[in-house]
Amino acid sequence: MELVFSHRMESMQPSAIREIFKNMADPSIIPFAGGNPSHEAFPVKELENIARIVFENNPITALQYSVTEGYPLLRDAVKSFAQSREPGILHPGDDIIITTGAQQAIDLATKALVNEGDTILCEDPSFIGALNTFRTYRANLVGVELEEDGISVEKLEAALKEHPDAKILYLIPNFQNPTGGTMSLEKRRAVYDLCLRHHVVILEDNPYGDLRFAGENVPAIKTLDTEGIVCYCGTFSKIISPGLRVGYAIAPAGLVGKMVVAKQCGDIHTPILNQMICCQFLQSCNVAGHLSALQKLYRGKCSLMVQAMEEHFSRARFNSPEGGLFVWCTLPDRIGLMDFIRAAGEAKVAVVPGTTFLPDTSRPCHSFRLNFSAPTNQQITEGVERLGRVLDQMLR
Amino acid sequence: MELVFSHRMESMQPSAIREIFKNMADPSIIPFAGGNPSHEAFPVKELENIARIVFENNPITALQYSVTEGYPLLRDAVKSFAQSREPGILHPGDDIIITTGAQQAIDLATKALVNEGDTILCEDPSFIGALNTFRTYRANLVGVELEEDGISVEKLEAALKEHPDAKILYLIPNFQNPTGGTMSLEKRRAVYDLCLRHHVVILEDNPYGDLRFAGENVPAIKTLDTEGIVCYCGTFSKIISPGLRVGYAIAPAGLVGKMVVAKQCGDIHTPILNQMICCQFLQSCNVAGHLSALQKLYRGKCSLMVQAMEEHFSRARFNSPEGGLFVWCTLPDRIGLMDFIRAAGEAKVAVVPGTTFLPDTSRPCHSFRLNFSAPTNQQITEGVERLGRVLDQMLR
Repeated sequence: MELVFSHRMESMQPSAIREIFKNMADPSIIPFAGGNPSHEAFPVKELENIARIVFENNPITALQYSVTEGYPLLRDAVKSFAQSREPGILHPGDDIIITTGAQQAIDLATKALVNEGDTILCEDPSFIGALNTFRTYRANLVGVELEEDGISVEKLEAALKEHPDAKILYLIPNFQNPTGGTMSLEKRRAVYDLCLRHHVVILEDNPYGDLRFAGENVPAIKTLDTEGIVCYCGTFSKIISPGLRVGYAIAPAGLVGKMVVAKQCGDIHTPILNQMICCQFLQSCNVAGHLSALQKLYRGKCSLMVQAMEEHFSRARFNSPEGGLFVWCTLPDRIGLMDFIRAAGEAKVAVVPGTTFLPDTSRPCHSFRLNFSAPTNQQITEGVERLGRVLDQMLR
Repeated sequence: MELVFSHRMESMQPSAIREIFKNMADPSIIPFAGGNPSHEAFPVKELENIARIVFENNPITALQYSVTEGYPLLRDAVKSFAQSREPGILHPGDDIIITTGAQQAIDLATKALVNEGDTILCEDPSFIGALNTFRTYRANLVGVELEEDGISVEKLEAALKEHPDAKILYLIPNFQNPTGGTMSLEKRRAVYDLCLRHHVVILEDNPYGDLRFAGENVPAIKTLDTEGIVCYCGTFSKIISPGLRVGYAIAPAGLVGKMVVAKQCGDIHTPILNQMICCQFLQSCNVAGHLSALQKLYRGKCSLMVQAMEEHFSRARFNSPEGGLFVWCTLPDRIGLMDFIRAAGEAKVAVVPGTTFLPDTSRPCHSFRLNFSAPTNQQITEGVERLGRVLDQMLR
């Protein structure tokens, strides 16, 4: 029988990145397309040891059902961790929920706040995974221009006025995905004030904040949140392991309460073994030392990529990010983006076309995203050289 | 700021069972309310050993991002397992998705199929976790009377005629939650034919199928599904561990495809470590031996409960299920259900009022659900005795 799907899903396509991902098993393809942490980044020995200890000391807790809001000891450990990384992030009316990755925190917040047809504002471009979630709720997705130091405040104000039904502003203030840029403190303050005035919840997604390898930390928007309008999403995917799928949201207690109910209906709770592993890692390992090792690793990989691009890819524009996992690159005007992506693919280099990240995918785009965490150093050098040859050929 | 929640969530309340759960840490309360497997049911040593092997042999796969549809080796292992338990369950057009528990399979299928206002038919009473999921999609929930051998075919036919917008029929054919009853093969065939004729997808939830400890196995409705209208949900929660949160759906490939896209937006993928643990368990442990040990364990607990009820609770009506985790009990007419539940609580016995399981919670109900897997044998005897004293007191 021909099945009829819901309106929300009938036009949804699999994420282009997830689809590219499936081909990444081919070792001859240079993987600049994903957002995977480096294999060297995983604290394998510590996690192996912790898993053994959890099974030895507390197997029943690890294997039995638990409460939806999260393993209580992990919730406390995450509060301390977040507070140490972002002083002032917890406000008196806030609560915390442990989620199956930050992706689920985004999903639950949207489920709790957005009706079909409501507007969600976001940076343009922005993270495809979040945009697709918003699309499954049939939100009216409105992109706001992204400048070098963050979203355009002027254009945000205009968008808020134009869309009084806006419910959420979705932001990745640190090392934005895909552009790698960071929002200035001045803009964070201005954006907070604007959203407060317009009764819009800020969904602050900060997967990369702990991966700063240059420049000065800028406080999270959540630290400014005296009025309870910010839902802050964090994750252990980039600093411990994405395969464990443990993330969290810190948000006003009323919103967390609704997210908990939504999560009960979604997956009951995040796996307890995984929560206990993350908890033990935060409690007993040298987290600061681990983070600075990660930062050093990615600083090296990023500068290797940027240097190779300066050498082989100087006819395009690109940034040199202060953290995160991505470099954003804009081609010369006369080069067609999809022609370039295809030619790169033929040269066995996978990158993600910028169109993937557009709230309005029909807008013209000349940029693409490169990831420097997943490839080896040798792949970085070799891959950028290949991209350089592809571009040179196209410009000839 | 006062946050405004979405219509779908504004009236949703936390699951009564999940809330009761929070109090179950109090060891003086006899836990007849949950649906937790017995602690004795967990293959702790095997899982500990498997986790160690996974970390030793394949840590990067366990910790890195993976594909949304599930760890490929687990998908194959689950297909073999399901096929061995339910011969003929896989049809040529079917595919499989690994989910974060069967709860997520229910959520994803609903997301893929149901628009706001569409009708979902279900047994009355039925599993609160699924009913609440349907409510978050603002479905029109229509309960159909449940008889001893399954849903009333006559009433189902009337309901299908009355609700041409019905998209899903949700069923728990084996050891139904909450009633413990099992649908006859004759009814399974009749229900399948009816749904095919009315273009309604059957969401077949089978968490307890492997926990049959008496009587003969009845084939899953999915084994009848030559036309591709059944989405079969399975889980390892009751036979390996609920804390690991690994479930699956076997369904027509088109529906699985939509569920995969919905899952990308929900939690990207189910944790890989957990999938690898379940995979290794299926591949290398004595699964048949483990299942028969579980069946023996629950056969003993169930008969202990039923015997104690025959002795102390004979003024109420109750069934003797052939499997699963629950006994369903109906009080004498003159006893108010909530008065009884309260008095039981005061006697420190937690049971779930039947109203919790009603699609229409305003319908009168005189029944409650008892769980025999979580309490110890001593708690079963003691708890039923206390319930007997409570009832005697109220009947005096």
